[in-house]
Amino acid sequence: MPSYQAPVKDTLFILNDVLGYERYNNLPGFSDATPDVVEAILQEGSKLAEEVLLPLNQTGDQEGCVRHDDGSVTTPEGFKDAFDTYREGGWMGLSADPDYGGQGLPLVLHTAIGEYLSAANMALMMYPGLTQGAIAAITEHGSDKQKAKWLPKMIEGVWTGTMNLTEPHCGTDLGLLRTKAAPQDDGSYKISGQKIFISAGEHDMSDNIIHLVLARIEGAPEGVKGISLFIVPKLNVDDAGNVTDPNGVSCGSIEEKMGIHGNATCVMNYDDATGYLIGEANRGLNAMFVMMNEARLGVGLQGLCQSEIASQNAAEYARERLQGRALTGTKEPEKKADPIIVHPDVRRTLMNNRAFNEASRALVLWTALRADLKHRSDTEEDRQAADDVLGLMTPILKGVLTDRGFDNAVAAQQMFGGHGYIEEWGMSQYVRDARIAMIYEGANGIQALDLVGRKLGANNGRAVMAYFKEVGDFCEENRDDENMAPFTKALKKGLNDLQGSTMWFMQNGMSNPDNAGAGSTDYMHLFGVVALGYMWAQMAKVAQEKLANGAGDDADYLQNKLTTARFYFERIMPETALRRQRIEAGSESMMALDASAF
Amino acid sequence: MPSYQAPVKDTLFILNDVLGYERYNNLPGFSDATPDVVEAILQEGSKLAEEVLLPLNQTGDQEGCVRHDDGSVTTPEGFKDAFDTYREGGWMGLSADPDYGGQGLPLVLHTAIGEYLSAANMALMMYPGLTQGAIAAITEHGSDKQKAKWLPKMIEGVWTGTMNLTEPHCGTDLGLLRTKAAPQDDGSYKISGQKIFISAGEHDMSDNIIHLVLARIEGAPEGVKGISLFIVPKLNVDDAGNVTDPNGVSCGSIEEKMGIHGNATCVMNYDDATGYLIGEANRGLNAMFVMMNEARLGVGLQGLCQSEIASQNAAEYARERLQGRALTGTKEPEKKADPIIVHPDVRRTLMNNRAFNEASRALVLWTALRADLKHRSDTEEDRQAADDVLGLMTPILKGVLTDRGFDNAVAAQQMFGGHGYIEEWGMSQYVRDARIAMIYEGANGIQALDLVGRKLGANNGRAVMAYFKEVGDFCEENRDDENMAPFTKALKKGLNDLQGSTMWFMQNGMSNPDNAGAGSTDYMHLFGVVALGYMWAQMAKVAQEKLANGAGDDADYLQNKLTTARFYFERIMPETALRRQRIEAGSESMMALDASAF
Repeated sequence: MPSYQAPVKDTLFILNDVLGYERYNNLPGFSDATPDVVEAILQEGSKLAEEVLLPLNQTGDQEGCVRHDDGSVTTPEGFKDAFDTYREGGWMGLSADPDYGGQGLPLVLHTAIGEYLSAANMALMMYPGLTQGAIAAITEHGSDKQKAKWLPKMIEGVWTGTMNLTEPHCGTDLGLLRTKAAPQDDGSYKISGQKIFISAGEHDMSDNIIHLVLARIEGAPEGVKGISLFIVPKLNVDDAGNVTDPNGVSCGSIEEKMGIHGNATCVMNYDDATGYLIGEANRGLNAMFVMMNEARLGVGLQGLCQSEIASQNAAEYARERLQGRALTGTKEPEKKADPIIVHPDVRRTLMNNRAFNEASRALVLWTALRADLKHRSDTEEDRQAADDVLGLMTPILKGVLTDRGFDNAVAAQQMFGGHGYIEEWGMSQYVRDARIAMIYEGANGIQALDLVGRKLGANNGRAVMAYFKEVGDFCEENRDDENMAPFTKALKKGLNDLQGSTMWFMQNGMSNPDNAGAGSTDYMHLFGVVALGYMWAQMAKVAQEKLANGAGDDADYLQNKLTTARFYFERIMPETALRRQRIEAGSESMMALDASAF
Repeated sequence: MPSYQAPVKDTLFILNDVLGYERYNNLPGFSDATPDVVEAILQEGSKLAEEVLLPLNQTGDQEGCVRHDDGSVTTPEGFKDAFDTYREGGWMGLSADPDYGGQGLPLVLHTAIGEYLSAANMALMMYPGLTQGAIAAITEHGSDKQKAKWLPKMIEGVWTGTMNLTEPHCGTDLGLLRTKAAPQDDGSYKISGQKIFISAGEHDMSDNIIHLVLARIEGAPEGVKGISLFIVPKLNVDDAGNVTDPNGVSCGSIEEKMGIHGNATCVMNYDDATGYLIGEANRGLNAMFVMMNEARLGVGLQGLCQSEIASQNAAEYARERLQGRALTGTKEPEKKADPIIVHPDVRRTLMNNRAFNEASRALVLWTALRADLKHRSDTEEDRQAADDVLGLMTPILKGVLTDRGFDNAVAAQQMFGGHGYIEEWGMSQYVRDARIAMIYEGANGIQALDLVGRKLGANNGRAVMAYFKEVGDFCEENRDDENMAPFTKALKKGLNDLQGSTMWFMQNGMSNPDNAGAGSTDYMHLFGVVALGYMWAQMAKVAQEKLANGAGDDADYLQNKLTTARFYFERIMPETALRRQRIEAGSESMMALDASAF
């Protein structure tokens, strides 16, 4: 019953008109993806999402995964076939290294399609999603021999990947982890320990599963400086790349969860399993961070995805559900009641979600483009600037898009009344699925701390200062354009709150770090509201330029962009003042109570 | 594994010190409940909650209800026994009319205990909860003969009740309902039609189920002016009050829902079922509103309840979970890590929830006391003033406490990281259960419309003006008290935003009703923030007075009240400015898009 239409037109507007995608056609990969090719690939991706993945979303939720007594796990009916279709379409390697079988296309394009696929079926797309992360970590930190051995089959999608960090007593604080790695004479290690919450840890969709596992080499220092990263395959692989015998890896159980039932969340037991060190010993966190950063962008995207599919279904319902009459007088007298979309409070939700979804899509692609530039730009300066933005935006995308994406899914569900609460209509699933994105890959409170405690101060604030300058310059450049003034004025006000809060942290966070911690979540959201506002200002500018040049059939589309931008600046942007006020309240009343008082 | 401790001390602080419960001991019912009796009853209620209801909460969620082929419904194991204990304790009739077997104690006391019970097991408590609503409707609108026939067994708890409003095509807009009532020669009616989303519609916990059903008498006018209310028992009852043969009532199916699995949500089919008109023909909505208003207070309370139990479990986890070190330096060097309660962002959630829970408890009891005064005061003036406040506060309690209660449950779940997402720890259940409270008994958007469209303007704004005056007077009376100044200054600012927004509606809502609709949800929350702030200001005043008089063992408790009040005014109260700004943005950008553009 739930429906989904991939927003291809919107993606093209962002890629072509807002990001000026063609500007980068001198860079590797971009030259292969001309605008025509990009559009064709997006259309193909939208078909996969709508026709193959979507029909399995609700059934996958209802059926869930099953672990059998022998430790094997069966995914919901149809998942394996759908993954075959995904694999055969070459989607796994779209932006992967051509030396190992990838197509080398820009990550920004891969990300655009990733939105469609994850919106249509989040649980299913986590299997390839985690594989992408594992591919990235091996590509960046593996030896040439390791790359040659593991990457081709992963990029082909014949093997999938996972990441193994968490242990029962150790989630955020990886320094506490206990899984052991014993060195062997042949240079490999024997891995022993238990990992929990391993998404896609065991399943029936691929020929092998390549686990990336954090463990402690015997004798390594305590804490985070004694952690190393290992490749631990489910089935051993010989030098010719063929699967041989089972490794000492097993799935002990799968979790009963609030959502993403189609994805198997496993307890993984490692019992003298053969593992291969990636990168340097004791530098495992470093290597894992490549995977985690990649994954964090993907998780931020999941927040947008669930908001988008929930909003689409809510809009459809709002147009069809007849209930009551418009406050301003009957709109459809021939019917027994008006459709509920006539009610302002229903519109409020639809517009709020729309204003978030469209700006988030732009922000995700804008950031993914920076990931491309980081890898593909021809000057060190460009690469560094791109990397700065990427580092800064990662916690914001992860934390803000998942928090707001969840809220939007809840708001969309609300529009259905009681029908939203029963599983039949599918709205509950979007809420339940979206909920995990706020938690995994670093709970959002950790994202906020990463932003405030690490990203702000890195390189003497180089990244954040450059970002403030970019947004400030944009406001300045457009201040005399009277069509842009309402947008830039509101954006500038938000930027002032953001800069003021940053300054407040500098003045008050040093003397008492709790002042930084107390304001971190508000700061992350304040930054997010400004970052999304900056996207809206850019989209408004493009829309106005195109309208001025005669937009033809696109006039309504562009006019709607301007209206939605206005809505954003009128009703969402003012949040910055509240966030700033909370930040400047500091930590005193928050920290005063004794722990035993709670 | 989940735990719960009924906050008896906090309830007593509110009843005795903030509300000055003893002041009302001249009123019927109050004289029977001296402070000692009140405390003893609260202690008994807390035992029932902690020892009988809580142990069945998670198992009830996991097991759910089962409908059998014969249409009967089995509730989760233990529910029937627990309900027997509840019944035998005389809890059902605690505040019911003594003429029909009730104890006639104040509703405020009943409400205080209702919090404990619903926090411990929301799904189970819905069975008696709906019965209370049915008792209220029959008490207020039934004939003496009907009261004598139906009330005693319901008040005893041998029979339970339900309310039947919704039909598949008709939720909010009751004017569309189609269920028919055909008059019979003996004065009864034959009821035919289908009702959906009937909580506790069929189950195995009582000897009979008394359905209150909205239906249209043949030939009645269209719309809401042709709706009547009927008593339709599951089993017919003879004049001696004995159950006889089955009536034409059956449960067609039960819904698969996001939460409250322990409560059977039924499709009820009426097939020439015998029904008895309550009150006047075509005035059924009027009679049903008694039940709905009662129910709305109960649903608002559910929001607080789920926030409370989720917060208690989060606090316990935060004290025990060791992860990372405090930003200000190691706090527990003998352990491998500090408990996460040292982290400001964790405290932020705990304090935010605490500031909401304690003020909400006060607001619920303050409002329930008005319900008592409405019925029991000896002057018409007092009764009217109480009724005014009750009407005004009902949508605020329902809408604000359930919205924020849900958010708080989500925030508490977040503190558990991945453990919050798996069902084992119970946090997911609080979120899933809390979700329905935003929807049923009038979705929160409808509460906001009720407030803005109906309650504000009623009797030329008499209720809201009196409320503004009361809060304003409090600020004025305490402006020279330097200990109170930080609180009253912030409260006054919030009140100004509330009054300003009210004025804005008066100036802009008449010419364009969409302007009122567009701001209604923000207005409801703005009102809620002020109303909770008023409670904090009163609690702070009492705490300061008691501290000044030498509080002994209570000093820490009272000091914590002052700190939490400070937190509220620093970090929650400032929301009023944002809400006002959104309200004053009006409806233009919200309503501009064509419906087809979504």
